[in-house]
Amino acid sequence: MKKIVVLGGGMIGASIAFDLHKKYEVTIADVNKKRLKNLEEKYSLKTIEADLSLKKNVQKVIEDADLVIGAVPGFLGFNTVKSVIEAGKDIVDISFFDEDPFLLDKAAKKHNVTAVVDCGVAPGMSNIILGYHNSKMKIEKFECMVGGLPAKRVLPFQYKAPFSPADVIEEYTRPARIIENGEVVVKPALSESEFVEIDPVGTLEAFNTDGLRSLLKTMNIKNMKEKTLRFPGHIDLMKALRDSGFFEKEEMQINGVKIQPLEFTSKLLFPKWKLEEGEKEFTVMTILIEGIENGKKIKYNYLLYDETDTKSGFSSMARTTGFTCSAAARLVIERKYIRKGISPPEYLGANTECFESILSDLKERKINYKKNQN
Amino acid sequence: MKKIVVLGGGMIGASIAFDLHKKYEVTIADVNKKRLKNLEEKYSLKTIEADLSLKKNVQKVIEDADLVIGAVPGFLGFNTVKSVIEAGKDIVDISFFDEDPFLLDKAAKKHNVTAVVDCGVAPGMSNIILGYHNSKMKIEKFECMVGGLPAKRVLPFQYKAPFSPADVIEEYTRPARIIENGEVVVKPALSESEFVEIDPVGTLEAFNTDGLRSLLKTMNIKNMKEKTLRFPGHIDLMKALRDSGFFEKEEMQINGVKIQPLEFTSKLLFPKWKLEEGEKEFTVMTILIEGIENGKKIKYNYLLYDETDTKSGFSSMARTTGFTCSAAARLVIERKYIRKGISPPEYLGANTECFESILSDLKERKINYKKNQN
Repeated sequence: MKKIVVLGGGMIGASIAFDLHKKYEVTIADVNKKRLKNLEEKYSLKTIEADLSLKKNVQKVIEDADLVIGAVPGFLGFNTVKSVIEAGKDIVDISFFDEDPFLLDKAAKKHNVTAVVDCGVAPGMSNIILGYHNSKMKIEKFECMVGGLPAKRVLPFQYKAPFSPADVIEEYTRPARIIENGEVVVKPALSESEFVEIDPVGTLEAFNTDGLRSLLKTMNIKNMKEKTLRFPGHIDLMKALRDSGFFEKEEMQINGVKIQPLEFTSKLLFPKWKLEEGEKEFTVMTILIEGIENGKKIKYNYLLYDETDTKSGFSSMARTTGFTCSAAARLVIERKYIRKGISPPEYLGANTECFESILSDLKERKINYKKNQN
Repeated sequence: MKKIVVLGGGMIGASIAFDLHKKYEVTIADVNKKRLKNLEEKYSLKTIEADLSLKKNVQKVIEDADLVIGAVPGFLGFNTVKSVIEAGKDIVDISFFDEDPFLLDKAAKKHNVTAVVDCGVAPGMSNIILGYHNSKMKIEKFECMVGGLPAKRVLPFQYKAPFSPADVIEEYTRPARIIENGEVVVKPALSESEFVEIDPVGTLEAFNTDGLRSLLKTMNIKNMKEKTLRFPGHIDLMKALRDSGFFEKEEMQINGVKIQPLEFTSKLLFPKWKLEEGEKEFTVMTILIEGIENGKKIKYNYLLYDETDTKSGFSSMARTTGFTCSAAARLVIERKYIRKGISPPEYLGANTECFESILSDLKERKINYKKNQN
């Protein structure tokens, strides 16, 4: 039985390990003892306690691995992938680190390593779908809209975050890079909000986010943008908080004490935005791809709508993200995807067999991408 | 020439002094030297520098006064009125202090003092109008809606505060006492918001505030409420901030440091809510009085709409508030209103001559209360 080590036992790491351990010998490594104990009991997963912020610990726990999954928090991601590459192990990573992954391309090639990054739902499946069509046609326009939302809409926020408010707010403050007429254009965070109707949810509000990431480099498409979806009204509230200074990172003085507004705000919002135990949520994503195929104008539309799996207890966010990662992991460990160096997910999608295998794996897990063309 | 001392040289105190110094010898007392200098230069007012938080200073500056005007900040108000009463001087007060003014009724009577409190626009004119009609009819319903708003509506707040954000937020957090079917009912702050059309402004949003104050005690009316007016949307934003904890007074721990959310929020909002030099604002108030007069059902409606006076530079807030106070001051100093003890403004209104004199003084100053009946 081939061996996989999952680095990071959070919500996403757990879903990946759970999905892979039926066919592979899976070990999950994390610094948090309590979390590991819970994973052992709940999913009978093998675990190792290790502080993954240290290179030597990372390299020790992956010693015997045939494949590594990177599911550590974003701020640890780049260094973790680097350590894995330097140990000569293949990796599929989902940590969504900020750094440019191509900085590790040379090292990965040198160590003969296949390293797939950003391999979740978006980024992830959105790239895979784009990569697939990009290999078949001349694309002129790519638009992705995506959101993870609570089933129950409660004012004022109508939102729950599967991770910390600070990480969500980061999406609300980072300027968004999009491609307009072949040029990178930087738009303000939360800009160009528009209402969109998406079945079966109804009206949602979409706004610019900085989600194109690797696509800015790897694609040659005249118009590309990524937008995030929320229930209508949420964005106005976030704009109000941002414009009032509640998201500022620069410390302010108050009664002789220094405080970072963002930190203060995150702390206040944390209990308000926390998904309750067993609270239902859903993931929705639409993808539009327009261009010329076989000399004809064509439009492809994809729609993903997925809810919490109440049987397994895995959130839709964990499933749609984690199961894309595990589908890619199967391709790499089974030598069906063998490209050396750094691969963003669009490289996998460009391989028709890989694309079909991922879609079929997801379908088996009841994650359905509905495709339309006209 | 009779002598008046105005305690407090803020925006309201200045407008009162300015209005009275044509006919009386007016001196304005304040702790702030710069502010006093400005008043001397701008309006040729006599000034005294004094820390009015000390009883002995208050009593010293009013030694020769025939009448005192109380225009200190709310937290100093009660003690200031007390000091003035104990010095045996008549006072018209506009500090809107939190304490029950009737606690000073005995002392005022003992010292043979006329002390009018809460004498602004609302509380103030709203009480005066109600007091007038209450002396003529059996009132069944009283509704007052009032707001001071910027002429220019800018998202997200569409609001500017003539005083500190903390004082405005206090109105947004204090439960509102209203009278329903003869009983005092406590409603949550910001509750029962409704859209109302008011000429010439358009649609505004009204919500419960705790503005009835003395009327809760002095009136025997089955239904009374006071609501505050803002541009639509402001209240939802305030509810969101309140519900997220941004208005909390209990300190929270953040990085080992204690901070009061309300203090933090006020500091962030201060520059956003500040009326700019010369920025235009307006005051709008509607009053509905319903009941039986001479055996017949009758409804009275009053509408006040007043804008910044660009000639004098006085804001509408300063004029509508301050000039009501100065109109009452004229009645007291001229012995046209002589009731001893504490008088909330509804007592003045119950005197037809006083009521007509105040309305006529305000009309002279271009503050017009339009009255309708049906």
